Amino acid sequence: MQIDIQFFPSLPHPNLLSDRVVVVIDVLRATSVMVQAISEGASEIIPLATVEEAFRMAKAFPRGFVLLGGERESKEIPGFDLGNSPREYIAERVKGKKLILTTTNGTKAFHAVSFGKEILAGSFLNIGATAQRCVEAGRDLCIFPSGDEGNFSLEDTLCGGMLIDLIVKREKKEIFLTDASYCAQVLYERFKNNLVEAFHLSHHGKELIHRGFEEDLAYCAQIDTTPLVPIFRQGVVRAN
Amino acid sequence: MQIDIQFFPSLPHPNLLSDRVVVVIDVLRATSVMVQAISEGASEIIPLATVEEAFRMAKAFPRGFVLLGGERESKEIPGFDLGNSPREYIAERVKGKKLILTTTNGTKAFHAVSFGKEILAGSFLNIGATAQRCVEAGRDLCIFPSGDEGNFSLEDTLCGGMLIDLIVKREKKEIFLTDASYCAQVLYERFKNNLVEAFHLSHHGKELIHRGFEEDLAYCAQIDTTPLVPIFRQGVVRAN
Repeated sequence: MQIDIQFFPSLPHPNLLSDRVVVVIDVLRATSVMVQAISEGASEIIPLATVEEAFRMAKAFPRGFVLLGGERESKEIPGFDLGNSPREYIAERVKGKKLILTTTNGTKAFHAVSFGKEILAGSFLNIGATAQRCVEAGRDLCIFPSGDEGNFSLEDTLCGGMLIDLIVKREKKEIFLTDASYCAQVLYERFKNNLVEAFHLSHHGKELIHRGFEEDLAYCAQIDTTPLVPIFRQGVVRAN
Repeated sequence: MQIDIQFFPSLPHPNLLSDRVVVVIDVLRATSVMVQAISEGASEIIPLATVEEAFRMAKAFPRGFVLLGGERESKEIPGFDLGNSPREYIAERVKGKKLILTTTNGTKAFHAVSFGKEILAGSFLNIGATAQRCVEAGRDLCIFPSGDEGNFSLEDTLCGGMLIDLIVKREKKEIFLTDASYCAQVLYERFKNNLVEAFHLSHHGKELIHRGFEEDLAYCAQIDTTPLVPIFRQGVVRAN
């Protein structure tokens, strides 16, 4: 099994992905929101790139059946039902609902890797289950940190590093790590006892604190709150 | 001062570079060769992207005045005078000579960042002097690891991490590190007592060992063998 982690915001070549499991990671906060929402009973999530698409898609469904969620510049979008804080996505609000989600980095990432054999939403909240799923798939793996507006993201790479670390410890077969995967694993080794410290160092973490979302940092640093690994198929994220 | 390190093989936007010092790093082996050659008295180095360009350029100079150096697939190029091992670039061969150099990653990188305010060749061999030069310049810095055929390179990022670490310790003014710079610094912290261990883990390090160049790994891991910081101007690398 080869494990690569894609530091580049550019689209990976479709041929590189078609036989691979792809794990999309946007710790702060899109994939944390997805994992949380699905674990609280949301029926499905449609990740979309733009606010316009989100409003258009919402019109196609009966009122009350669908919720609009997401952010621009970390803030809730006017006319939307929910922002991008996973703490908002509780059963009372999302159970049985279809969510339409649009965020700056994370929701676009799913479409960028749509050629993957199996596309999973990873976060610290479901990291153990994600690692287990990757081991069971037994395929080469491409970890895709969503990044920070096209830039390298410390917190997403850290999460990727923990995923690599867990897989390396569980997988019986030989694993080949790329240089980038080694680097992510070293990053995790450095911050494993204090994920929130890393979030505080990161550009996007600082931005969220500045905008009043500091509690989200600790929330998104929780490990294994759910065994669910949302999967993205034909444009929709579901529990399985 | 802001310090960024560019993990992406794509061209940084010219506007991002025009006010910055750029340090190009290709530890294994192009910038190690350049630093070594200049410190052994080569008059100048012309880094070129292709073998064809190198032969064409060589014809423009009198015989014996110019040496052709470089590699393809880590091996010496037929018809060239020198390969890409820094151990070959000794005063007896290169003193007073003009070198034309073409390698897989490193020589292209200089042209990719040619919009930089000042473009330096960095390696472990001249890391202390490179850090000092960056501190004295007092400008924002972009570190540009050449990468491994378009992929992230462990050894170049490690060298970038050491450069960041040295600058952070010497610079009196406030320094802003990007997420990528933090990551490179953590990588250096992990391997600082055994650079060669990291080279052995890296994809390109393994390839060089496989091709019989293991001695180059230890050679390129030497710290501060020279105070020279080669500079790239108008297509040519010189001592100053």
